[in-house]
Amino acid sequence: MKVVDELLKNPGAWLKVGAHPGVMVSSRVRLARNLENTAFPGWAGEDESQRLWQSLRPVLEALPGCAAPVVLEMENLSRLDKEILVERHLISRDLAEKGPGSALVLKADETVALMINEEDHIRMQAMSPGLSLPELWRTIDSIDTDLAQQVRYAFSPRLGYLTACPTNVGTGMRASVMLHLPGLVLMNEINPIVKGVNKIGLAVRGLWGEGTDAAGNMFQISNQTTLGETEQTIISRLEQIVLEIEEHEKHARARLLQQKEISLRDHVGRACGILTNACLLNSRETMDMLSALRLGIELGLLREWSAAVIDELFLLIQPGHLQKVEGRIIGAEKRDLARARLVRARLSAADKRQQG
Amino acid sequence: MKVVDELLKNPGAWLKVGAHPGVMVSSRVRLARNLENTAFPGWAGEDESQRLWQSLRPVLEALPGCAAPVVLEMENLSRLDKEILVERHLISRDLAEKGPGSALVLKADETVALMINEEDHIRMQAMSPGLSLPELWRTIDSIDTDLAQQVRYAFSPRLGYLTACPTNVGTGMRASVMLHLPGLVLMNEINPIVKGVNKIGLAVRGLWGEGTDAAGNMFQISNQTTLGETEQTIISRLEQIVLEIEEHEKHARARLLQQKEISLRDHVGRACGILTNACLLNSRETMDMLSALRLGIELGLLREWSAAVIDELFLLIQPGHLQKVEGRIIGAEKRDLARARLVRARLSAADKRQQG
Repeated sequence: MKVVDELLKNPGAWLKVGAHPGVMVSSRVRLARNLENTAFPGWAGEDESQRLWQSLRPVLEALPGCAAPVVLEMENLSRLDKEILVERHLISRDLAEKGPGSALVLKADETVALMINEEDHIRMQAMSPGLSLPELWRTIDSIDTDLAQQVRYAFSPRLGYLTACPTNVGTGMRASVMLHLPGLVLMNEINPIVKGVNKIGLAVRGLWGEGTDAAGNMFQISNQTTLGETEQTIISRLEQIVLEIEEHEKHARARLLQQKEISLRDHVGRACGILTNACLLNSRETMDMLSALRLGIELGLLREWSAAVIDELFLLIQPGHLQKVEGRIIGAEKRDLARARLVRARLSAADKRQQG
Repeated sequence: MKVVDELLKNPGAWLKVGAHPGVMVSSRVRLARNLENTAFPGWAGEDESQRLWQSLRPVLEALPGCAAPVVLEMENLSRLDKEILVERHLISRDLAEKGPGSALVLKADETVALMINEEDHIRMQAMSPGLSLPELWRTIDSIDTDLAQQVRYAFSPRLGYLTACPTNVGTGMRASVMLHLPGLVLMNEINPIVKGVNKIGLAVRGLWGEGTDAAGNMFQISNQTTLGETEQTIISRLEQIVLEIEEHEKHARARLLQQKEISLRDHVGRACGILTNACLLNSRETMDMLSALRLGIELGLLREWSAAVIDELFLLIQPGHLQKVEGRIIGAEKRDLARARLVRARLSAADKRQQG
């Protein structure tokens, strides 16, 4: 679909250099909302879902916080286009599996995305590069307030917003920050951090959400609790924790440089050597190597590339993006070949630009 | 010792481009000889060994086949100098451990080496690059004949030449060929070959002899039998077998190119990338990567380097050579650093020469 093709021309707003380049990669805040007297999407039939979407669509398209949005209905999207939206974190894999009545309403700059008929009737999220939870909260809260004036949410005075899954009841809010933590991983200090974060009621996930591991040393930290606390309390605790983790990461990097400079240079050098010379690269290995390059750039060990080139590659090497760039559906083995070619080409072009 | 330093200036005659560049790396033929009415070195005391060496020395120095030799007595050599001689395959590790009375008499071009008071009184070997067993046999046989006119060998008309270890009794000859077999290894076809070779009474060893594995895909194939056959028979059977293995290796390489070209290019590219970018390289990994480069060069996939550059690196990255180049004794970790530096420097210099 043409609209999806357009997305590929830029790296996605939340991937642009952010307020906290380096450790803090991106932030997002999402709210789960449902309409009263309407079955949750999991219970509703196709007709009911369709009616809900048709009635919501004009309301959402007219929201001031989401001006002139791109509207994408799941049933009209190819598998590949949906894959690309998933890879850009604009829709969930669950939404991609849904049929008629499920849709994405996307602000053109990719900073606000509303999923319709996913697990809940409406999942609205705001995202940005770097760390900016209060700003994102204000953005999404204002959209939520506008919307609340035009629809009636399923709301219980005792529990708060009602959601399909009990883990979201209350605020319906999930705030998350993606952190790049290669220093803690290389210093073997990531496990106590993850355990500590879990203990205080936050979740740690990999780049692609629940059940994925931390490919590329990317860790997504989010609140678990949605009940019994205000959104501001949840957000400010999350913010405080990720700032602390950022400090730990910075210390780990400083100690890496001081105590293990040669191993670090070796690690970064090998990643460079492999990415610029391999002919077959799977996504996992590529992300891990890109993580090493990103670390090398941030520590001043690599001057050939900017972090932006690496961050864009993190996105482009995903299977969907890769196939879109290639212009055709290709199997895993051919993708490894195309991925290696893409990485070599991008790194070599960026290297020449940087030097020229 | 200065004489050992001199050796470092050239790559060792048997490493120069040989008669069969590519699969056949080098050949050697050695004879074990002992003097009659004299205790084997393992039984002889230090005085007896010293006397034997003093009486043999002028005879060996005057041998026509070993003109103006370099004479190195083990007791006068540093540990590092002995390590270098071992790495150049000029002495055995056993000889390096010996004290007074043990010595090396070496033809200056490194093609003939006589070890005195190793396991036997005299171990004489001739070596060359590529495959040239009959020539080496003629060389060493002529030295043996000359020597036999001046000393009395321990010889039994029934058994042949008597040696300290029964596995050498008879001809006292061990002929061996070093083969580079990355194709068979990559195609997973090396094990049946090794088993087959063992079955017909030949031994397969790694680069550094008995008990070592095939680092860098280098396999040394030699006769086991020394009794009941003439030297010519043994040598011609060995020659026939290694020629057959060379054919297998060539077929394996052709099939690699046909059926697995991309994996092959990936394998070679990664080795390139790592060798030119790593900061820490241990010997085993380096040899395996150099093996990939050697294969890449021979198959025309790499044009940056000549096989000679790689073959010299195979020698220079060994711990002894590395420390000699560095000019000091350094521990394993520092050696990995020095090794990576040396490899990067050599490959980069050779690359520029090739392009310039």
